[in-house]
Amino acid sequence: MIGPDDTLAYMRRNRKRYEDELAAFIRFASVSAQPRHADDVARCAAWLAEHLRTLAPDMLRLVPTHPHPIVHAAWRRAPRGGPTVLVYGHYDVQPAEPLEEWLSPPFAPVVRGDDIYGRGASDNKGQMFVHVKAIESFLETTGALPVNVICLFEGEEEIGSPSLASFLNGCRNELAADCAVVSDMQIPGPRRPAITYALRGGLSVEIEARGANRELHSGVFGGVVCNPLQALCEMIGRLHDSRGAIAIPGFYDRVRRWDPRERRYMAKVGPSDAEMLGRAGATQACGEPGYSLYERTTIRPALTVSGVTGGYQGPGVKAAIPTRAVAKLNFRLAPDQDPREIDRLFREHVKRIAPSAVRTSIRTLMCAGPALIDRTDPAIIAAARAYRQAFGAPPVFLRNGGTIPVVTLIQDVLRIPVVLMGFGLASDAIHGPNERFHLPNFHKGIETSIRFLSEMGAQPQTSHRRIANRARIMPQKELVA
Amino acid sequence: MIGPDDTLAYMRRNRKRYEDELAAFIRFASVSAQPRHADDVARCAAWLAEHLRTLAPDMLRLVPTHPHPIVHAAWRRAPRGGPTVLVYGHYDVQPAEPLEEWLSPPFAPVVRGDDIYGRGASDNKGQMFVHVKAIESFLETTGALPVNVICLFEGEEEIGSPSLASFLNGCRNELAADCAVVSDMQIPGPRRPAITYALRGGLSVEIEARGANRELHSGVFGGVVCNPLQALCEMIGRLHDSRGAIAIPGFYDRVRRWDPRERRYMAKVGPSDAEMLGRAGATQACGEPGYSLYERTTIRPALTVSGVTGGYQGPGVKAAIPTRAVAKLNFRLAPDQDPREIDRLFREHVKRIAPSAVRTSIRTLMCAGPALIDRTDPAIIAAARAYRQAFGAPPVFLRNGGTIPVVTLIQDVLRIPVVLMGFGLASDAIHGPNERFHLPNFHKGIETSIRFLSEMGAQPQTSHRRIANRARIMPQKELVA
Repeated sequence: MIGPDDTLAYMRRNRKRYEDELAAFIRFASVSAQPRHADDVARCAAWLAEHLRTLAPDMLRLVPTHPHPIVHAAWRRAPRGGPTVLVYGHYDVQPAEPLEEWLSPPFAPVVRGDDIYGRGASDNKGQMFVHVKAIESFLETTGALPVNVICLFEGEEEIGSPSLASFLNGCRNELAADCAVVSDMQIPGPRRPAITYALRGGLSVEIEARGANRELHSGVFGGVVCNPLQALCEMIGRLHDSRGAIAIPGFYDRVRRWDPRERRYMAKVGPSDAEMLGRAGATQACGEPGYSLYERTTIRPALTVSGVTGGYQGPGVKAAIPTRAVAKLNFRLAPDQDPREIDRLFREHVKRIAPSAVRTSIRTLMCAGPALIDRTDPAIIAAARAYRQAFGAPPVFLRNGGTIPVVTLIQDVLRIPVVLMGFGLASDAIHGPNERFHLPNFHKGIETSIRFLSEMGAQPQTSHRRIANRARIMPQKELVA
Repeated sequence: MIGPDDTLAYMRRNRKRYEDELAAFIRFASVSAQPRHADDVARCAAWLAEHLRTLAPDMLRLVPTHPHPIVHAAWRRAPRGGPTVLVYGHYDVQPAEPLEEWLSPPFAPVVRGDDIYGRGASDNKGQMFVHVKAIESFLETTGALPVNVICLFEGEEEIGSPSLASFLNGCRNELAADCAVVSDMQIPGPRRPAITYALRGGLSVEIEARGANRELHSGVFGGVVCNPLQALCEMIGRLHDSRGAIAIPGFYDRVRRWDPRERRYMAKVGPSDAEMLGRAGATQACGEPGYSLYERTTIRPALTVSGVTGGYQGPGVKAAIPTRAVAKLNFRLAPDQDPREIDRLFREHVKRIAPSAVRTSIRTLMCAGPALIDRTDPAIIAAARAYRQAFGAPPVFLRNGGTIPVVTLIQDVLRIPVVLMGFGLASDAIHGPNERFHLPNFHKGIETSIRFLSEMGAQPQTSHRRIANRARIMPQKELVA
């Protein structure tokens, strides 16, 4: 094992420079969704590649994916047979609007208190830069890394990663690794690290109901022709049963039942019902009975009606039967649900319940499977040790109700476990005005990354190259950590 | 009885001039809803008043209601004890947009074929001008009218008649009459006159459901907090039962059951199911079983969901639980439903079915009772005779599923029957581009009005001054005409 002491000392001496470089990184308005910022995205990618040049003598390339390039770098000089870690991050950012709500301009980063403010400070520039600076700290002090490292930084995450799947599929060999590290999430507090070991899957669909080809007067025809808007509302009303469970036949068939040990662990480390309600600003819970709120948002699926539009939207009255109505639905899927199967079950259900007098159509907008990472995986154990050393506290293992399609994609295509090593805080205001990154977390993050790479390099070789398929990385028995 | 022969001859000699004057009337862009046309509305009112000056030596005034004046004129020199007819019309028009779809400018009327084209040609300038020209034809030939006549022409009908109720209430004595005539509807064809003897009432409400004060992430909170948009859809889903009937307890309690004779009459004179579907452009009917489609739209109430909005409306996916959702509902009420009672029953129903975790509020936007006119009323009999003489065919008596709040208002406040004496055609395209009025109907309309006033003057005096209250003008037994 290459001892990290010199590396940690170097890192500490260079805190100020690392912060300045992070500020330089944030200064690029790399907004992937806004065509007017296309050049800023390109300049940011070039800056990042140039920054990695000295760190990645083996391989560095800008992959010209459209609309925004992938920065792909590799260092492959680890001791023979040593493991390979794939670091994923994204250098593109959300739009900064509404600009008037920012206390300082989004692309002119400033430090106030312990935080650096700017669009992308936490999501994801600050969190991904942690690993870049860990790599640098190693190379500047020992001339080597304890493991092989591949960097994969995309510029399209905030627009749905349109190029990533084909890039991963086309470069399976170059990207072969023992684990991936993704730092694009929160931990409960600056002294409370956490490793996310489960994500829900996502399935977003749009359902449209159409009736007559023209608006009909509700006086003349009200009561005799089918109203597609009413039909849509009635169909939505039949997606949940009276207890709050999802009423699509077969929907729960594959949802994994967890043993009491796992549920006790979740109750011990996860948020209480009161905490969950407090975070939501709600006084009353809804949903499926028999589960804690934390369980309902993690090991149980959910269906959110996220938008409905139909008929007259303006002030006052318009006495017309609408011609069409559209609803957007967002499913969150629990292990071991398959989003494609759920998509099929949903379509079959709609076919059953749709009145024959309206024409319904369904469009699938997004589809990602749930992710589950074995808490006993060597990479997870290495990450837990690294966190404990860097933060002075052991991480808790938490499930997250959200969906990170990139994680599912990496698991599905590269068939490696993903270490969800977050350094963000709930107060980071990602996607909102005055986004910030907590600088103590930036430095502790670099230390965590340094210690993680050391731990990975120190593990017995037999534990590596466990190229698991997705079924295998979904453990049947969870370790109570 | 003052014979109308000279009057009819005069009318026929002046066809061209009457058409030119109608064109002059249409030329005013009296769009009540658009503030930029306020002067045009005022000029139109002044022109109309000036036009009536020679016809109404007893009383003529421009009532300065806000935003647009009422033109109020009276001629009261009928033989002592003779009846009084109130002619209602409106000189304001709908906006003309979209202008690019007009073949000729909306306020530059032109005659093409048998029709005069222009905004307001049918609704309502042409149809109300019929009566003005009938009055002129009498006065120019006999120097008198067979009955007392009150003209009440408002300039705010297309914006919901905001001033009319208080004007009627404040001028009950000046407006005392035996019947009112409203010509603001269609007849089935240019040789198929009709008298509308029933209208449905209307109740328009807006229901809002509110949840959390801020949008919540559907991954993090999907499954534990109540979604106001889902709750609203579910409430809408509980407004109708599985057969298509309205599921509000007590809703049908006051709906009048009609005897088989009336239903047979309706089946004989009303449109068939196939005709109704054809008009709607639909292939399949919906709604309450056990009634013909004509019955469902006239003697049965209906509830139309006319608009729903909530959550994300743009393209793609937004993974958020909305904070609020709004639906617009439009009830059509059958005799003898009371819109205020239905409003109360609806609010009670919502209170019962609304989940406790969402806050619901209901706003009543429009409220008008159903109207039913006794087909045996002397004024209706006079109108039927006049139609038969002028059109060469007896009118059919039809019910209409729509709501004309003015009719209910006149019945409620002045407590007189309203003769719904339409001259429009379905092809008039009222409210749309290329609105037109069929000129043969204009001239037949003037003749119908002349003959109607004659018939009213010829009726035995005992049949007049039947100041009925609304209960009495809703007959328990209908005459099969």
